[in-house]
Amino acid sequence: MDLNALRTANPDHWSKATAIRALTLDAVAAANSGHSGMPMGMADVATVLFENHLKFDAANPLWPDRDRFILSAGHGSMLIYSLLHLVGDAQFPIEEIKNFRQMGARTAGHPENFLADAIETTTGPLGQGIANSVGFAMAEEIQRATYGKKVVDHFTYVIAGDGCLMEGVSQEAITLAGRHQLSKLIVMWDNNNITIDGPVTLSDRTDQVTRFESAGWHVIEIDGHNPAEIDAALTEARKSDKPSMIACKTHIALGHAAQDTSKGHGALTDPDQMAAAKAAYGWTTAPFEVPSDVKAAWEEIGKRGAAEREAWEERFDKMPRAKRETFNRALALDAPKKLSATIKAFKKQMSETAPKLATRASSEKTLEVINPIMPETVGGSADLTGSNNTKTSDLGVFDTDNRAGRYVYWGVREHGMSSAMNGMALHGGVRPYGGTFMCFTDYARPAMRLAALMQVPSVFVMTHDSIGLGEDGPTHQPVEHLAISRATPNTYVFRPADTIETAEAWEIALTAKKTPSVLSLTRQGLPTVRLEHKNNNMVEKGAYVLADSDGKRQVILIATGSEVHLAMQAREMLQAEGVGTRVVSMPCMELFAAQDEAYRKRILPGGAVRVGVEAGVQMGWDRWLFGERGKANKAAFVGMDRFGASAPAEELFEKFGITAQGVADAAKALL
Amino acid sequence: MDLNALRTANPDHWSKATAIRALTLDAVAAANSGHSGMPMGMADVATVLFENHLKFDAANPLWPDRDRFILSAGHGSMLIYSLLHLVGDAQFPIEEIKNFRQMGARTAGHPENFLADAIETTTGPLGQGIANSVGFAMAEEIQRATYGKKVVDHFTYVIAGDGCLMEGVSQEAITLAGRHQLSKLIVMWDNNNITIDGPVTLSDRTDQVTRFESAGWHVIEIDGHNPAEIDAALTEARKSDKPSMIACKTHIALGHAAQDTSKGHGALTDPDQMAAAKAAYGWTTAPFEVPSDVKAAWEEIGKRGAAEREAWEERFDKMPRAKRETFNRALALDAPKKLSATIKAFKKQMSETAPKLATRASSEKTLEVINPIMPETVGGSADLTGSNNTKTSDLGVFDTDNRAGRYVYWGVREHGMSSAMNGMALHGGVRPYGGTFMCFTDYARPAMRLAALMQVPSVFVMTHDSIGLGEDGPTHQPVEHLAISRATPNTYVFRPADTIETAEAWEIALTAKKTPSVLSLTRQGLPTVRLEHKNNNMVEKGAYVLADSDGKRQVILIATGSEVHLAMQAREMLQAEGVGTRVVSMPCMELFAAQDEAYRKRILPGGAVRVGVEAGVQMGWDRWLFGERGKANKAAFVGMDRFGASAPAEELFEKFGITAQGVADAAKALL
Repeated sequence: MDLNALRTANPDHWSKATAIRALTLDAVAAANSGHSGMPMGMADVATVLFENHLKFDAANPLWPDRDRFILSAGHGSMLIYSLLHLVGDAQFPIEEIKNFRQMGARTAGHPENFLADAIETTTGPLGQGIANSVGFAMAEEIQRATYGKKVVDHFTYVIAGDGCLMEGVSQEAITLAGRHQLSKLIVMWDNNNITIDGPVTLSDRTDQVTRFESAGWHVIEIDGHNPAEIDAALTEARKSDKPSMIACKTHIALGHAAQDTSKGHGALTDPDQMAAAKAAYGWTTAPFEVPSDVKAAWEEIGKRGAAEREAWEERFDKMPRAKRETFNRALALDAPKKLSATIKAFKKQMSETAPKLATRASSEKTLEVINPIMPETVGGSADLTGSNNTKTSDLGVFDTDNRAGRYVYWGVREHGMSSAMNGMALHGGVRPYGGTFMCFTDYARPAMRLAALMQVPSVFVMTHDSIGLGEDGPTHQPVEHLAISRATPNTYVFRPADTIETAEAWEIALTAKKTPSVLSLTRQGLPTVRLEHKNNNMVEKGAYVLADSDGKRQVILIATGSEVHLAMQAREMLQAEGVGTRVVSMPCMELFAAQDEAYRKRILPGGAVRVGVEAGVQMGWDRWLFGERGKANKAAFVGMDRFGASAPAEELFEKFGITAQGVADAAKALL
Repeated sequence: MDLNALRTANPDHWSKATAIRALTLDAVAAANSGHSGMPMGMADVATVLFENHLKFDAANPLWPDRDRFILSAGHGSMLIYSLLHLVGDAQFPIEEIKNFRQMGARTAGHPENFLADAIETTTGPLGQGIANSVGFAMAEEIQRATYGKKVVDHFTYVIAGDGCLMEGVSQEAITLAGRHQLSKLIVMWDNNNITIDGPVTLSDRTDQVTRFESAGWHVIEIDGHNPAEIDAALTEARKSDKPSMIACKTHIALGHAAQDTSKGHGALTDPDQMAAAKAAYGWTTAPFEVPSDVKAAWEEIGKRGAAEREAWEERFDKMPRAKRETFNRALALDAPKKLSATIKAFKKQMSETAPKLATRASSEKTLEVINPIMPETVGGSADLTGSNNTKTSDLGVFDTDNRAGRYVYWGVREHGMSSAMNGMALHGGVRPYGGTFMCFTDYARPAMRLAALMQVPSVFVMTHDSIGLGEDGPTHQPVEHLAISRATPNTYVFRPADTIETAEAWEIALTAKKTPSVLSLTRQGLPTVRLEHKNNNMVEKGAYVLADSDGKRQVILIATGSEVHLAMQAREMLQAEGVGTRVVSMPCMELFAAQDEAYRKRILPGGAVRVGVEAGVQMGWDRWLFGERGKANKAAFVGMDRFGASAPAEELFEKFGITAQGVADAAKALL
């Protein structure tokens, strides 16, 4: 590249973009770690985006109608940190840049949404940002249809790299965006033909233009270092009635000795090469120093949206009060006041009528009372609507001609769905839940983990949660998936035993602000076990005594979900033989672990043998069986120690010994 | 559809295809469960494939040079079961068809490779079959280049549905196949425009033809009920120098009242509708009865390949003996005789030189001695070759001009890589291993679970296995991933402490026949802890005493991987204070659990407090800390109870308290 030509053609642009390049080089060198090449390659595109297109106000990064900027190629984090520093975001003083990748800095290795207001999402695991962005754009469409474009009218801009586009989830994302004609979604592809192992062509020769067009996108190809072309492309993209992909031909590590090489992807810290690059840029200030005129120009950009934001606030204030309140309440993730009373009334009715229902049907029944009073919920399923029971009567279907629809047919895209749900939650104003078979937690895992890490309350409705799924067999029968979700920090895993526990789990899931939930629900019918109505949400305690022993307590049976009624039957058998037996229902281990020791001891006192019952692996149970630190019990577990099989469900429970008799026998063997 | 026209145009074809439809209807009705519509829709395509193209010999389903037939749309399992019954596969008598989806039948809900010889892979989780098939086709290329096309020369045929093509992994698969011009891979897309939730267009409007073309495929569009078109397309596809996709326009549940509806996807069991469909087919025999002439015609098809197989055997016998032996040895998954001695010699050298190495580098060092003597290994990485240390000097790179290359640059496709690795292993003759960061276990999960379920010994090389990854931060730091893999049945999870344990782990992984392995390897350097050479493979026992107590044993420290040397340092501290301390290295919990009780007790006797140390979550550890059934110890765990952070690795270990001092303190607190 002839840097001089670039510089002289557009000197103002050049110095602004070069500030990003210089800060990137300096920060990576100070950290001796990081990725220099991507920010250096995409600096021109980002500069034009921020200068002429992105609607934002650096002083108010949480302004609800801001455009969203998502750095899907999260390893290039110094791009967004540089931008935020330059535009004057108060959370990004130069000290943060100097502290890149150090303990406690906001400038983490990859952008982390929970560390700074202006970071919309956490990226780094490739493909997640572009998949999140579909949810951002959908949430914008839903909100715009709900509140009107005077109040909601913004774009979602994404920078994605070759790695993002190679990940399978990107295909799920772009086909969703194409299907729904999310015209306010604009992806800028950093087309630099470099990955870590070498040129992209080493592992991929996809024609990305045709690929995006096949999914219904508008595609524009440009020179990613030409500000006029960048600007024209963004203008064109904003006018398109399709989602747009701008293929930006760029040079990774522009101007550095490592330009256009895979070495350029990583940390460029050689002092001489840095000096040479800066000299080629015509950049003469000391490390971390931005010339004051350049910084001032960037700060003007940071203020560009202030007037627009103020005008928006005036418009917002003119909305009817009820609408404003709902908008703000949903944005703050506050549940509607009516929710608690609604759930209580529903529970009371269920205790009285004691229906026999699969908990997936219990979940639908619960949603039928929640969705009408909680307009921010957005449901969906990965092509298993009738099986996941996620669609209630009043939601309407999200589609090109019904943007206010609150139900999404996600198609066979568990990963894309989950990642887009996270995007919706991050966008704010909507509360997403989505369903698939629990076994396909495997497909959704990258997004489920990120929900936990990002602290967003997405709700994953996982039905067919054990061998109770029956004939579809071991490919569809979860065995280890409860353990997988429970092993993940900051995740509520609910396995309710009946309709009442299901309703309580939903109440917690839909009032959580920083924790995602996994609802583990059955295919098969279950009796109601909570026959006595309690106003309190018992699931909130994680575990509670469902039935206490008659006489001296010799046995404690601890069970979850579909195995609670087996424990209740086993208790009958044991009591009939004079063995005092308590049944503890444990619908949420994480919440039980969070109770104080006194409560935990009250529910699980010493001096009795314990049997855990769950149609899954033992991993995660030993704490409750053998006791917590330094305390111990005689205990056994009735569950699965291998994959399931294809056969009718009842036969499978017999085959694997997960029966009331099996539980009673296990208890007696310990006495 | 005018069934009568179809029938009269090709009466012989019609009756053969209709046998599939009738058996499907009967089996699903008997099971009252299953998926009728897909086999009914794809019966014509499958019939032409089996009759005129597929190279197979029903009497010898394991003939190494057979064409592979993969039913990626695994819910349509009655298609393959019908075919196998009809062609006379001895494992599929009519009783198996009658027993569809029942306990112990080979005719499981979805095709399971471990239940029948002719079932090449386990499908059902959508997209897996098509992703496996890339590995099948690569293995064929590698073997053909190695042994010559007289001995290896076969196609891989795949039937994939709309669901397969919507899953993101399909994009990873088709772009890999296109990149590598896998011309012997032929995908037949069941283009019926129906998914469970409704028409495909409800959730997807991708132009699949353009999409496949963008990935470098040859695409042919046909009427999937016209035998001449099907035949011509298969002929054309076999001649193409690209992978081919045949878009077969079909009618799901052809001829049934539910034709062309999402209801047709499921179990069609209404007796009147079944009778009407059979009448429309002109099918008059009793349930499960195939007219003898039709059965005879199908059995002829089953014998079609016998002569070709015999000719192949003659050619095979003419190969040099050494080549034949290697071919058969690799196919049988027998390790070369030299492997054991090679590993022993390597271990001895390492004990003597005691290098300080990251275990990812230990792994590379080990592979440098293994790969030259084990020509069946095929390595690779999902674009992290230099980080995963998976490439050794002699492998050569698999490419269009080097089909014998044994190293695959998989690109940023963790899921596609893992699924293709499974396909390679299922094809046979090669032993795949592939690397990524351990955190991206999340992306690979669906394939890693299937490796375990399918009983194939794929080796997943997972480096950067803890907060020791450092600055890249929590998106890249595994915390729960050891627990996730350990929760999965039939999976070896190895976390070696040094080069010697790494070599031992590799030996087990590469001699396993039915169990996949996960190697959990560090980014950071570790000292050699096994300073005294042992001929025995100590990892094989799962856990062993690395250093015993001086004096009375008061403490047992149990550690894995990068925390073993911390435990050794903690032991020094404790012994200095007179506290007798044993250190147990536990590189593989699954293998330790498989030892007899006497061994387990010898390693972990009672009467001492226990401290577990691992830079991951506690889940999975309680069994070893608090004791097995009915026995108990005072114990503590030093590890992670939350996500990590972005900072230099040493600072992170300090911050989270995973230090020698922390371990010693935890032990003392228990005394």
